[in-house]
Amino acid sequence: MSDTAPRECDLLIEAGWVVPVAPGDAVLVDHAVAISNGAIVGLLPTAEARQRFHARETVARPGSVLIPGLVNAHTHNPMTLLRGIADDLPLMVWLQEHIWPIEGEVIGPEFVADGVTLAVAEMLRGGTTCANENYFFPDVQAATYQKLGFRARVGLPVIDFPTAWAKTDAEYFDRAIDVHDQWRDNPLVTMAFVPHAPYTVSDASFERIRMLSDQLDIPVHLHTHETAHEVEESLQKYAQRPLARLDRLGLVNDRLIAVHMTSLTDAEIALCAERGVSVVHCPESNLKLASGFCPVGKLEQAGINIAIGTDGAASNNDLDMFGEMRTAAQLAKAVAGDATAFSAVSALRAATLGGARAMGLDDSIGSIEVGKRADLACVDLQQIETQPLHDVVSQLVYATGRHQVTDVWIDGKARMQQRELVGMDCQALIANARQWRTRIAAIQA
Amino acid sequence: MSDTAPRECDLLIEAGWVVPVAPGDAVLVDHAVAISNGAIVGLLPTAEARQRFHARETVARPGSVLIPGLVNAHTHNPMTLLRGIADDLPLMVWLQEHIWPIEGEVIGPEFVADGVTLAVAEMLRGGTTCANENYFFPDVQAATYQKLGFRARVGLPVIDFPTAWAKTDAEYFDRAIDVHDQWRDNPLVTMAFVPHAPYTVSDASFERIRMLSDQLDIPVHLHTHETAHEVEESLQKYAQRPLARLDRLGLVNDRLIAVHMTSLTDAEIALCAERGVSVVHCPESNLKLASGFCPVGKLEQAGINIAIGTDGAASNNDLDMFGEMRTAAQLAKAVAGDATAFSAVSALRAATLGGARAMGLDDSIGSIEVGKRADLACVDLQQIETQPLHDVVSQLVYATGRHQVTDVWIDGKARMQQRELVGMDCQALIANARQWRTRIAAIQA
Repeated sequence: MSDTAPRECDLLIEAGWVVPVAPGDAVLVDHAVAISNGAIVGLLPTAEARQRFHARETVARPGSVLIPGLVNAHTHNPMTLLRGIADDLPLMVWLQEHIWPIEGEVIGPEFVADGVTLAVAEMLRGGTTCANENYFFPDVQAATYQKLGFRARVGLPVIDFPTAWAKTDAEYFDRAIDVHDQWRDNPLVTMAFVPHAPYTVSDASFERIRMLSDQLDIPVHLHTHETAHEVEESLQKYAQRPLARLDRLGLVNDRLIAVHMTSLTDAEIALCAERGVSVVHCPESNLKLASGFCPVGKLEQAGINIAIGTDGAASNNDLDMFGEMRTAAQLAKAVAGDATAFSAVSALRAATLGGARAMGLDDSIGSIEVGKRADLACVDLQQIETQPLHDVVSQLVYATGRHQVTDVWIDGKARMQQRELVGMDCQALIANARQWRTRIAAIQA
Repeated sequence: MSDTAPRECDLLIEAGWVVPVAPGDAVLVDHAVAISNGAIVGLLPTAEARQRFHARETVARPGSVLIPGLVNAHTHNPMTLLRGIADDLPLMVWLQEHIWPIEGEVIGPEFVADGVTLAVAEMLRGGTTCANENYFFPDVQAATYQKLGFRARVGLPVIDFPTAWAKTDAEYFDRAIDVHDQWRDNPLVTMAFVPHAPYTVSDASFERIRMLSDQLDIPVHLHTHETAHEVEESLQKYAQRPLARLDRLGLVNDRLIAVHMTSLTDAEIALCAERGVSVVHCPESNLKLASGFCPVGKLEQAGINIAIGTDGAASNNDLDMFGEMRTAAQLAKAVAGDATAFSAVSALRAATLGGARAMGLDDSIGSIEVGKRADLACVDLQQIETQPLHDVVSQLVYATGRHQVTDVWIDGKARMQQRELVGMDCQALIANARQWRTRIAAIQA
C-alpha cells in the first residue's frame, strides 16, 4: 500500500551492513536506516527503502557497516588535557604528586570547556556518540556538550573535601540541584549524581544522594570496588565491604552505575544481579593502574548489565571505545579461563546498548530500532586491516581501528562526514591543546 | 672541518622528534637521520644535519616522531587470510573444527603468497618493518618477502605429522636445509628453525634441530609454555615440564626464541635469564585464547630480553604492533600488581630492539644508530588523539593508533610514503582478499 506513496524522511543511510544490536544479534546485509526529526523511522533492505521513502538526503556507504553510536559509560573528559602527563607511576604518586597539584592550578571553567571540547572531537572521530561524564563544573560541561550537539549524562559531583567546584557538603548539594534544575528536560544533556567513591563520601551524603536520585529520577554513577585496597580500607573503617555499606545506605539498586568492580565475591555478584545494578567495565584503566581484574565472564553469566568505559585520558590514555571493546573481549577470556567468554557480540552490545541501559537512556539510544533517536556510526570495512571480511562483528571488535569510522550522527544530525568533523576546527583544537601543554609544563617545572 | 665540505647522502629525514631506542632512552627534539646505501650514516640536530649532509632527497616531518621500524617477533602471516574466521571458541574447537579443516583445503603456495602479501601491506601501514615468521612453505614466504622488500626471518617448520609441506621427519629436514641454502646471505630474508611446539616435536627432532641450528648459526623459534595444559601434558608424557625437557635436549640457550611463556616458575625464569633465552610476549593472543598470563614484570626484573609479537591474525585478529605494545604495557602492570611495571619505554624497546635481539638481528636493526640499516617508521603526532603532547613515548605506546604511521623505510627504501604503499596496490589486495573469502566460505558451507 505504501508503494504508491513514498513517505518523506530527512535522511536515508544505505549501508553494506547494519548491526542493529537489538533485538537479536542480526547482521543485516544491504540495509538502510531512514531518519526523520532525529528519530529512526525505518530499518529495512535498501532496495525496499528506496521505494518506501523519499529522502531529502541520501548517504550511500556500500562498503561500510552502520552501528549504534558507541556509549562511553565512564569518563572524565576534561582530563583529556592531561593525557600522558605522568604514566607508569603508582596510583597514589600519580594522583598526589602529579594529577592533583596540576588540577589545583588549572581547574576551572576554561579547563573544563577546553578539555570537553577536545574529548568530543576525539570521541566523534572514534564513533562515540554519548558519554557518561564524571568531573567538576557540570554546568560548564553541560553547556559545552549542548553547544557541540553531543549526548551526555553529566555528573553532579559530591566529595567529602573542598574543591574549586564547592567547599562544603551543603554547597555540593546546592550546586548539584541548581545545575540539575537548569538542565531539566534537555534532549541531549541529562544529569546523574557522581559521588566520587565510597572512601571519599560519608554515609550522610550517600543517604542524601539516594533520596535525591529517587526524587529527581536520575542515576548514581560511582567508582567502586576499584581495587582490593579500597575493599580492605572499607572493612577497617566501616567493618563492611563497599557494596555491603552501599546496600545498607540503600544505593544498591537499578539506579546504580557501578564503575570498575574488581574484587567481587560471588555473593556480591548475585546481589548486583538481583538488584539490577549496571557494571561499567574499564579494562584498560584497570590494567594500566594495576587495579585488578573485573570478572566480566561471571557478571555476564549472572545476567548483569555490562557497559564499557574508557575512564579518563589521564589514566588510559585515550577515549577509544573500539580499543576498549577489544581489550574487554580479550581480557574477559583470560580472566575467566574460557575462550568463549564475553564474545565479540557481547562486547559490541556492552559498548552500545549496555551503556545506554546503565545510563537509563536505553529507551532512546543504544540500538538501531524504529522509534529510537538516530545516534549512529558508520565504519569502513574496505581497508586492508579488516579484510577478508569473514565475520562483520568479529572484525568490528577484534580488528577495526577507530580511524575506520567515517560518519557519525547524533540525534539525526551529522557530526562527522567522511572523517571531517562538522562545525569543529581540528587545527584550532590542536593549537589550543598545545597552549595547555605549555601552561601545564610551566606548572610542572 | 666537515662544515666546508658537506657529505653526500641518499636521504635526510628531518623529524620533530627522534626516539632512537638505543643507546639510552632519549627523546631527541628536531633531529634528522641521514641515510646512504640503506644504512644510517648520521643522527644529529636538524640544523646541523642540513650543514653536514648534502642529501639527494629530504623528507621533512616536523610534527612527527621517527622511531625504529617495529619488529613483530611472532606471527603466522599466511593466516591473515583467515582473520576472524571462527572467534570466541575454545582453542581445540577453533583448531580442529575450523582452522585445520580450512587449511587442509587451501594451504599451498598461492595461499601462502597471497596471505603474506596482505600481511605485508597491513604491517607496513602500521609501522612494522620486520617479521619473525612461523608457517609452512618457507620457500614461498621468502620469495614473497624478498619481492616486497620486507625484512623477515622465515621459519623452517618441523612437526611430527605430515602436512602439505612435508610428509616425514626426513622430508621436513631435507626441505629445511634446501630452503636455508637457497637463501643464505640474503640481506633481507634470513631463516630460523620453527619446531611447532614441545607437544608436537619428538626428542630426536629437537636434537637434530639443536645440532643444525648451531651449524647454520640460526635461531630456534618455538611456541612453548603457551598454556598450563601444555605443561601438565609434558609432565605426563615426559615427566618433565617443557622447559626442563628442552634443557635436557640442549635447546635452552641464547638461540632460543621462546614464544608465549605463561605458567613459569621463578626457577624457570632464572634459567632463561642465565642462558640468554629471549621471550616473545603475545599478550592479545594469550588473552583471546585464554592461554594464561606471561609474567612480563618478573621477566624484565630478571633481565630477560623481551620481544613482542602479534601472533597470527586468525587468533589475534590483527598485526597491529601499536595495539600489542599498548596491551603489553597495560597488562604487565595488572599481572604484576604494580603500576610501574613494564613502562612505555620498556614496551617500545621490546617492540623494536628486543625483537631484533631475539631474532639475532640487533647488529643491524632495532634502533636508530649510525651503522645500522635504515628500517624506520614516521608517526604523525599532530592529531587530536595524541594531543596535548606531554610525553612522546607515553603517547606512542598508550595513545597512538597505527594509522598515524605515515612513512616507512626498510633497508633505506621507502615502502610507504604519506600513507601510500610503494609498489603495492591496496585495491587489488582487497579484491584478492574478497575472492579468498568467497572460496573459504564455500569450504565452510
